[in-house]
Amino acid sequence: MTAAVAGLPDADALRKQVTNVLDGFLERKAGAAAKLRMPAEVAECLRDFLAVGGKRLRPVLCVTGWQAAGGTGIPETVIKAAASLEMFHTFCLVHDDIMDDSGSRRGAPTVHCRLARRHGHGRSASAAERVGTSGAILVGDLALAWSDELLHTAGLTPRQLDAVLPLIDDMRSEVMYGQYLDVTAAGRLTADVEQALHIVRYKTAKYTVERPLHIGAALAGAPLAMHEALSAYALPVGEAFQLRDDLLGVFGAPEMTGKASLDDLREGKHTVLVALALQRADARQQRVLRTLLGTPRLDAAGADRIRELLTATGARDAVEDLIDARRAQALRVLETAPFPPRAVAHLRQLTEAATARTS
Amino acid sequence: MTAAVAGLPDADALRKQVTNVLDGFLERKAGAAAKLRMPAEVAECLRDFLAVGGKRLRPVLCVTGWQAAGGTGIPETVIKAAASLEMFHTFCLVHDDIMDDSGSRRGAPTVHCRLARRHGHGRSASAAERVGTSGAILVGDLALAWSDELLHTAGLTPRQLDAVLPLIDDMRSEVMYGQYLDVTAAGRLTADVEQALHIVRYKTAKYTVERPLHIGAALAGAPLAMHEALSAYALPVGEAFQLRDDLLGVFGAPEMTGKASLDDLREGKHTVLVALALQRADARQQRVLRTLLGTPRLDAAGADRIRELLTATGARDAVEDLIDARRAQALRVLETAPFPPRAVAHLRQLTEAATARTS
Repeated sequence: MTAAVAGLPDADALRKQVTNVLDGFLERKAGAAAKLRMPAEVAECLRDFLAVGGKRLRPVLCVTGWQAAGGTGIPETVIKAAASLEMFHTFCLVHDDIMDDSGSRRGAPTVHCRLARRHGHGRSASAAERVGTSGAILVGDLALAWSDELLHTAGLTPRQLDAVLPLIDDMRSEVMYGQYLDVTAAGRLTADVEQALHIVRYKTAKYTVERPLHIGAALAGAPLAMHEALSAYALPVGEAFQLRDDLLGVFGAPEMTGKASLDDLREGKHTVLVALALQRADARQQRVLRTLLGTPRLDAAGADRIRELLTATGARDAVEDLIDARRAQALRVLETAPFPPRAVAHLRQLTEAATARTS
Repeated sequence: MTAAVAGLPDADALRKQVTNVLDGFLERKAGAAAKLRMPAEVAECLRDFLAVGGKRLRPVLCVTGWQAAGGTGIPETVIKAAASLEMFHTFCLVHDDIMDDSGSRRGAPTVHCRLARRHGHGRSASAAERVGTSGAILVGDLALAWSDELLHTAGLTPRQLDAVLPLIDDMRSEVMYGQYLDVTAAGRLTADVEQALHIVRYKTAKYTVERPLHIGAALAGAPLAMHEALSAYALPVGEAFQLRDDLLGVFGAPEMTGKASLDDLREGKHTVLVALALQRADARQQRVLRTLLGTPRLDAAGADRIRELLTATGARDAVEDLIDARRAQALRVLETAPFPPRAVAHLRQLTEAATARTS
């Protein structure tokens, strides 16, 4: 997802523009905080979080949606609206990391860990952890509020706002519900693949791919048929993206993903990968999986044992097959989709990057 | 705060209208969730949370601001905008209860405790607690997103929205920053009264009183001078409101406040009350206060010992004096404020209710 695409919206340049918008916004927020005698660390946490990485996938897709629907050029207003999606995503990740109790993200400490350290002096470990969690809940809340501020100060026309706001509302509810299903399903191992796919659809496919495309298209005044064509492409790609993420979460190299590869297994996440393994495991394999998955103190040897079983049951290959089928489906949609050629080329590139990535 | 005020916006009727807007909205959300195969419990949690009580103080103040600025009647659009403030407040309380690890609110279990129970079956106590916390973070997030949806679907004119959105932005940042100061200061006992008052100003005075009045006034197209007059009234009343709350949190009857009276003491909250006590305590009293305040397992006897010292040092009386001075200041402002007589009468009544309340 990092290479610029020849003749297409230069993704690297776009990422830089989005980052500039976010940096400028957060700098103003830090200045405003100082005037209110409020700590600058909130804006700093968010700035640093955004600085260490992130693919800016949602802003790129938003701009791609704009182009797919025939938008010309990339107006500053569209960049700003796209940037508001990245700020929203930052909110999601800060809160997700609390829920998953993740220690690192993008190779750096997560916000709640950073704040626990910052406010740890003279506090017990558990008191410091609580301050870190509370602070990170608030940093996330501010990121959500600020994503909204970025959007409604982007300079969109009333007509654009009318078109976009219902999609933003849907996007927010969908990802929050998806995450809600995810956290309430974690630790309850079942072979229910359909439920796992339902979570994938809301937590990722709609949130990460479909809605950013819709929002960009709505900015360009797209009719309903365009939204439907974008959905037909977005949902399979988005599902494949999350299925790849699940594989990377278990089999990926932490130095590439920036995340510890034990987290998902310790959480006992209800992923398609795990559901398929439970479906296919014999009685002995079932026992081992059910004993090890979701163990908070799972060690490297236990994780290796799980990985062996995920492979031996054929679940890993089956997930690769699901990814392949979805990639093929998305590419098929692009063959007849009513998008301009450059948008099609970009979406094709995104499909490959999203489904074959290693980080 | 519960009695209707003769000749003034009938606060009881207004509360009912606001509750109806919120109930209708959440009913539609529950229906939408069912269609997406998403759990109804999120909307139910919020509905139940709103049903068990709440003074609807911010919506009442919003409508009062509307009237103070010369708004006529109470249009449905204004009621809806006012209701969005109550939904936002629900978000604040759900997240605050997680941060404070409170078990009850308004006499009912807090959302994270309710969800921990609901999802506890077959989980360890600590796993259930984590699911409860994660679920409540998300229920709060949805309440914040939905407060936004309520506002921008309220049917306000573009001009009203333009006037109100910057105030909403400020309100959100202010209360989140105030809460951030509050959680990072907790457990660090100091005699810094000014810092404690700074927290009060942002966490409560601006958020609970000033901004709702401003927002209502902005809906009526109020000029800057009107906003300034409202601030001159709102800040002292809001500070008095929080100072009263701090006293109730320690000395109040739990059956009246709906909250356990040990929570604030166990948290070691940096309140004006505690800061004043530390300022006035002799060496022996200092030692006792510093030993007991912020003890997670503080028992009833320890709490009684703290209460004795808060009284013996004169801190309790000093806080009563601060409340009196602020009430007097607010009433003085009303004598010359450019508000219509019915708004003045209502604000006078609110002043008494906010500063002399028992729950």
